[in-house]
Amino acid sequence: MILHHLYILGITVEAITGALKAGTKKMDVFGVIIIACATAIGGGNIRDVLLGNHPISWVGHPEYIVITTCAALITILLSPFMKYFHRVFLVLDALGLVTFTIIGVRMTLALGHGFIVASIMGVITGVSGGVIRDVLCRDIPLVFQKEVYAGVSIVSAWLFLILHAQGLPEISVILITLGTGFSLRLLAIYYNLEVPKFNYTQMD
Amino acid sequence: MILHHLYILGITVEAITGALKAGTKKMDVFGVIIIACATAIGGGNIRDVLLGNHPISWVGHPEYIVITTCAALITILLSPFMKYFHRVFLVLDALGLVTFTIIGVRMTLALGHGFIVASIMGVITGVSGGVIRDVLCRDIPLVFQKEVYAGVSIVSAWLFLILHAQGLPEISVILITLGTGFSLRLLAIYYNLEVPKFNYTQMD
Amino acid sequence: MILHHLYILGITVEAITGALKAGTKKMDVFGVIIIACATAIGGGNIRDVLLGNHPISWVGHPEYIVITTCAALITILLSPFMKYFHRVFLVLDALGLVTFTIIGVRMTLALGHGFIVASIMGVITGVSGGVIRDVLCRDIPLVFQKEVYAGVSIVSAWLFLILHAQGLPEISVILITLGTGFSLRLLAIYYNLEVPKFNYTQMD
Repeated sequence: MILHHLYILGITVEAITGALKAGTKKMDVFGVIIIACATAIGGGNIRDVLLGNHPISWVGHPEYIVITTCAALITILLSPFMKYFHRVFLVLDALGLVTFTIIGVRMTLALGHGFIVASIMGVITGVSGGVIRDVLCRDIPLVFQKEVYAGVSIVSAWLFLILHAQGLPEISVILITLGTGFSLRLLAIYYNLEVPKFNYTQMD
Repeated sequence: MILHHLYILGITVEAITGALKAGTKKMDVFGVIIIACATAIGGGNIRDVLLGNHPISWVGHPEYIVITTCAALITILLSPFMKYFHRVFLVLDALGLVTFTIIGVRMTLALGHGFIVASIMGVITGVSGGVIRDVLCRDIPLVFQKEVYAGVSIVSAWLFLILHAQGLPEISVILITLGTGFSLRLLAIYYNLEVPKFNYTQMD
Repeated sequence: MILHHLYILGITVEAITGALKAGTKKMDVFGVIIIACATAIGGGNIRDVLLGNHPISWVGHPEYIVITTCAALITILLSPFMKYFHRVFLVLDALGLVTFTIIGVRMTLALGHGFIVASIMGVITGVSGGVIRDVLCRDIPLVFQKEVYAGVSIVSAWLFLILHAQGLPEISVILITLGTGFSLRLLAIYYNLEVPKFNYTQMD
């Protein structure tokens, strides 16, 4: 199934971004592995825990942890070359973001919940990994600030739900959502698009 | 039921405080919505997840998410006027804090747990939303530092439990706790009361 | 059972480290209590919630919260003397780290999960309390940076699992793991050992 392959690609890429971020904070090898795994798998964990959906993903599939741990170690070994692949990671990360969102939406629908809950679970699956990474590394979560990141997840979730409600075959719904969300994110990165920011200065 | 109306008021006010805080960090519109929802609803989520109480609140009542999303959007639109209502928000936030605490205590008692567990779940319901908001915005959680905030939640939880144990009618218990907790918080704000602080300087 | 006594010792020590850290951030008394309890008990909470293992520890044993609350209050009262015991706390904390890890591994095995899941749950139980403490106090989690802290937890978890797989009597497995993990951590502190760090400078 295409989503499964994209999921494996997605957690690998997220693990790499987690490991690189941990490297900017000079964490030790064990710390890097933990941040990488939390970034890659954390979003799905939050979704499963909120839905009461046990066993959560990696408890049923421990091989996911093996994959993300290896990705972290390889990132450390190859870090001198990582900077040349910066753009490749951005592209793969965009693919991961939309894939995670779609997986979250589908799983929530399959459990019998409605569209609002499904859309939120999609967004939680898509963006929470990056939020966990940034909180553990003591940065303001980038996903709330830069280049429509959370926005792409929200738009992809609702696009999937609207197409799904039209009764289109699921594979079409998945491919159209993937293509649209992915293009939107790439355009946002390329043209440095930003959603309007809310800039408020507190008085007290 | 009075608690239900106060709950809706409470999540609306918490969503506004979340949106305003996100604005001080220059988040984009989607980030503001996510922070607002997490602030308003996050505390109850943590309680429900810790208690294994599924479906958690907004999964059963997605309209709560609609309310907090609208509150965030209206906050952005009306932000130039928000500063004039600073004091109004503090008062409503105090009401929300005590309401959330009472709701957490009652729900935990209804699940058959004892007083200690109920008091902690009340405090978690009351203060965690603000903690999530401050962690996501990379601030030290205010609730642990300023104006007896967490203290009001702890006192309200135990006052409710003590009155409840006397066998008073529930509506009286709720109203007395609401009045006392609310007054305590307003007095603390007005006179700038603070619980003694623990100031420790590490040596190593 | 030796693990139970060590567990009580462990949560007491973790509560003290949480209270001292909260003191460096000038939190008020209620904030100190909450940070102390979250540090002492938070790691086990995350494990239980991820495993869907209800009731989670302190909901079934509210006396744990009473212990950690008392530890926080005593820490505040005796804080002028705490600096003289800095080294004692480091030693007890090392014991707590290994104890928590072993408890997490055993509980996960008892629920029927495999070695990979058990090792991760052991590490989560061992280190998450300190991570929660540092995130709430807005520090980069020390456990990912200093003196092999997370590393000791990972090594202890796998040592326990390997010995367990040899069919040794459980009490021997526990004592060997405790002794090895504890010694490793003390050596790391004494000689200021560090796992190699990953130092990455982002380009963008």
